[in-house]
Amino acid sequence: MKIIKIGGGVIDNEKALSSFLESFSKIEGQKILVHGGGKIASRTAEKMGVVQQMVNGRRITDKATLDIVTAVYGGLISKQIVAGLQKYGCNAVGLSGADGFSIEAHKRENSDVDYGFVGDVDQVNTKLALLLAENNFTPVFNAITLSKKGELLNTNADTIATELAKAFTTKYNDTELIFCFEKAGVLKNPDDDSTVIEKINQKTFEQLKAENIVSKGMLPKLENAFAALKAGVGKVIIANPEYIKDSDVKHTEISLL
Amino acid sequence: MKIIKIGGGVIDNEKALSSFLESFSKIEGQKILVHGGGKIASRTAEKMGVVQQMVNGRRITDKATLDIVTAVYGGLISKQIVAGLQKYGCNAVGLSGADGFSIEAHKRENSDVDYGFVGDVDQVNTKLALLLAENNFTPVFNAITLSKKGELLNTNADTIATELAKAFTTKYNDTELIFCFEKAGVLKNPDDDSTVIEKINQKTFEQLKAENIVSKGMLPKLENAFAALKAGVGKVIIANPEYIKDSDVKHTEISLL
Repeated sequence: MKIIKIGGGVIDNEKALSSFLESFSKIEGQKILVHGGGKIASRTAEKMGVVQQMVNGRRITDKATLDIVTAVYGGLISKQIVAGLQKYGCNAVGLSGADGFSIEAHKRENSDVDYGFVGDVDQVNTKLALLLAENNFTPVFNAITLSKKGELLNTNADTIATELAKAFTTKYNDTELIFCFEKAGVLKNPDDDSTVIEKINQKTFEQLKAENIVSKGMLPKLENAFAALKAGVGKVIIANPEYIKDSDVKHTEISLL
Repeated sequence: MKIIKIGGGVIDNEKALSSFLESFSKIEGQKILVHGGGKIASRTAEKMGVVQQMVNGRRITDKATLDIVTAVYGGLISKQIVAGLQKYGCNAVGLSGADGFSIEAHKRENSDVDYGFVGDVDQVNTKLALLLAENNFTPVFNAITLSKKGELLNTNADTIATELAKAFTTKYNDTELIFCFEKAGVLKNPDDDSTVIEKINQKTFEQLKAENIVSKGMLPKLENAFAALKAGVGKVIIANPEYIKDSDVKHTEISLL
């Protein structure tokens, strides 16, 4: 079981997205795609005159913004990805965490900042995704989750992918988690794809943090990676979509030791 | 198997929608919900400055409008309905026709008017909806369909419900099709719910048309109803959501004879 998350930079580039979807559709065996879609949501908010409030670089999800991300992630991007996969013969089904109550979350609280309708994951219910995967459908998850109270919530897509991988590792012990984005992996020099760090373990991660090589955006991704490995996920990769096409392409593999 | 379509007037009224979802969730046995969501899409288009072109009272679905309906029907309304049903213990899954390639359509052509990305249904593939229904999930279909070329298309939600009922009647011979909207049924006087016509057959339908009692919006709904009955659907009802709560509430039943 491969769980592959694609970043906003890939979604925003029509050619890169189409190429990725073709490679993804060719993967044999069970697979799940996870996506967010931040930039399209921001552009839609701007067109609709919904001002995006940011605190410490993080978006506040007020009600109007929640409606936009539910529409854009759960509808526009989800269905465009599903349509793209169907074109390549991959029988995809777009799902939010509300569908089949697959991802239960709660509204983030007890924080210094009120982030609004932002959800922290409580548990993944694999019943629906398993039923689909075992019947030759390919689940495509977006980053919308659901609370017990029936609130739709906006959740980080990297976290969704990580939580799905952690849940599926109890069913499939060969579960792999792959974060795909526009760069070749974790880079020593963020502007130079040739400086990809091919292996990171917990010890070298501490060094990279100390040397400030791991930047703000990469830090939570690596923390998610180690959390997945500690929960038993077999393999965690950070790579460019080219890696899905050809596993010889340089990438970063994360391991505990 | 009950296939229930809810109209835009119900979706637009938060209280009516919530009450309907509660009644729907209490229906025993297999069921499918179908929705569009016209007015919210129009309001979103207005906010985004996308001018809605109308020809002979019909909306032209240009690319910008297609993106809006995909987002609003496939994301915002679909996930809000799913969240509402989950709150009432109904394990709903929101689907477009692209998901599992459940509803294959083609772009309307050879017409005097270019309606844009509007889809006419070619076939319903019941595999995904059946798998879900037989495993205690409740499919919630929106009105977005998919062409063989991979184009998302905007389709009439009444037609989606009718085509689903026609397809399911080959699996379940007790399939029922229910169109729910803000009125009590087909009315003699459109402003007076007490004038509901309780039974319409093909003969009385011709009379109603001749007397101009059946209005423009109701005509295609009744044509869909007769098409469903001719294809073997067991029962077709046009009613207010109150009928879902209490089948003694006055409504219109359509029959061939």
